[in-house]
Amino acid sequence: MRISMPRLRGVLSPVLTPFDAGLAPDRKRYLAHCRKLLDSGVGLAVFGTNSEANSLAVEEKLDLLDYLLENGIPAGRLLPGTGCCALTDSVKLTRAAVAKACGGVLMLPPFYYKQVTDDGLFKTYSEIIERVGEAGLRLYLYHIPPIAVVPISAVLIEKLLKAYPGVIAGIKDSSGDWNNTQMLLDNFQSDGFDVFCGSEAFLLRTLRGGGAGCITATANTNAPAIVDMYENWQNAGADAKQAAITATRNIFAGLPMIACMKAVIARELNDPGWAMPRPPLMPCPPDKIDAVMAELKKAGYKYI
Amino acid sequence: MRISMPRLRGVLSPVLTPFDAGLAPDRKRYLAHCRKLLDSGVGLAVFGTNSEANSLAVEEKLDLLDYLLENGIPAGRLLPGTGCCALTDSVKLTRAAVAKACGGVLMLPPFYYKQVTDDGLFKTYSEIIERVGEAGLRLYLYHIPPIAVVPISAVLIEKLLKAYPGVIAGIKDSSGDWNNTQMLLDNFQSDGFDVFCGSEAFLLRTLRGGGAGCITATANTNAPAIVDMYENWQNAGADAKQAAITATRNIFAGLPMIACMKAVIARELNDPGWAMPRPPLMPCPPDKIDAVMAELKKAGYKYI
Repeated sequence: MRISMPRLRGVLSPVLTPFDAGLAPDRKRYLAHCRKLLDSGVGLAVFGTNSEANSLAVEEKLDLLDYLLENGIPAGRLLPGTGCCALTDSVKLTRAAVAKACGGVLMLPPFYYKQVTDDGLFKTYSEIIERVGEAGLRLYLYHIPPIAVVPISAVLIEKLLKAYPGVIAGIKDSSGDWNNTQMLLDNFQSDGFDVFCGSEAFLLRTLRGGGAGCITATANTNAPAIVDMYENWQNAGADAKQAAITATRNIFAGLPMIACMKAVIARELNDPGWAMPRPPLMPCPPDKIDAVMAELKKAGYKYI
Repeated sequence: MRISMPRLRGVLSPVLTPFDAGLAPDRKRYLAHCRKLLDSGVGLAVFGTNSEANSLAVEEKLDLLDYLLENGIPAGRLLPGTGCCALTDSVKLTRAAVAKACGGVLMLPPFYYKQVTDDGLFKTYSEIIERVGEAGLRLYLYHIPPIAVVPISAVLIEKLLKAYPGVIAGIKDSSGDWNNTQMLLDNFQSDGFDVFCGSEAFLLRTLRGGGAGCITATANTNAPAIVDMYENWQNAGADAKQAAITATRNIFAGLPMIACMKAVIARELNDPGWAMPRPPLMPCPPDKIDAVMAELKKAGYKYI
């Protein structure tokens, strides 16, 4: 059944993780936000960078995943981040995601040691895939060198695709470097390997290049316009739509994006508690968020 | 009782973590190695960078810690690394270390997000200290920008020392930059804040500057000479001893140090299984280890 499940495409978002006053994940706020994203046509890349996933314990992630599924979130729309520094943690999370029939997993390389070899990264992914041992696993590689500081090279992708065709299902390219996305589209794209850009700023170019869509943090706060771009990319006016969503994204440029997006949602919901990130991230200063809200409204932004 | 416990001083080592054939931590090999280090006068900074600690799940670390203590390793000689990306993980590990009366904890900053603020790092350490809530906690900061890519600044140290005197007990400086160690010795050293260099190459200079010692990976394979340097630093011949241990350390320069040290121990114990790191690290190539062994023997190195 899993093998024939529709592949993930379109717009996904690393879902922001709201916390309660004690800095524990707030399941109710989380579920409500996930439902809104789904209703807007956005798939749920839970436990991504912008989800503060690495600031959560494995058990906290498993608990949130269970809660979403128990409350009717369709597993096929979930793409949990399961790549940890510790091999055993990555295996545990990935196993859970496959057992629950998630649409795929998005997997960071282990990111503590720097300048590790492609062989070492291959061995990491390989051990995880073998230990999970499920043909239904769809593993999307997560390339985000500005933060992980451990890149996913073309050599590594080639080796993984050769060893695990069908399991290595695609990549999220958060390099911020279009040349890299283009290289991925040119060299690796196939029925079994989908390229997602990591920012909606590259969405139209990615789709025109045959890519599968984007997995972008700012879909948390600008879902309708980004989904509209995706749905109409072959129609007249696509370039204008692209320019508009890029401009809206750029409102966050140079700001602490996670905290700012949380603050935007807190304002929109009139729920100040939503704004709190978990340390080491800090709340967005009120003066900055005033300016962001004003810019967003000027840009015609609509919250979901 | 804990308050009056002797403070950690001298030579400590981030204990290498041996694995079994299934890549699980090998408790027996580990215990034997810890005992040898202690017998050589080396304190046990378990779960450090060179311990592959971030490649281990929290539960794996708790299990190893329990095993050492159950087998008579004195808690006061243990300085476990307890700093994780996730606040809740750091709290869990630190609580366990304090409950078991470890000599202190060595705490990385959360290292996934880069360019976080000093306020965000202060809030992280502060939350951990408050949640652990034990006056007996002795927290040593772990500054290792080449790998964590998240530094511990002077501003942060000052703020933490002011807020938590007695708890903030010192720092391991693994910047590799003597100017930084000198700055720490000049500005922060006190009865309650001990400076450890992160390499024996700086040991004599650190001790002459009033520092407490070093916490160095290569004590795993060159313990006797490094301890001899520490014990005789005020005696004639100290500079020659320093030159010798630096030269021995430099044999590992440019090599994958963790894998090479493991391979050295595997050779010395005639126990090939010792050589295996956990991915993403890879075993040291045999030709490299041949050269290292030859150099070590030429340098008069003695294994413990």
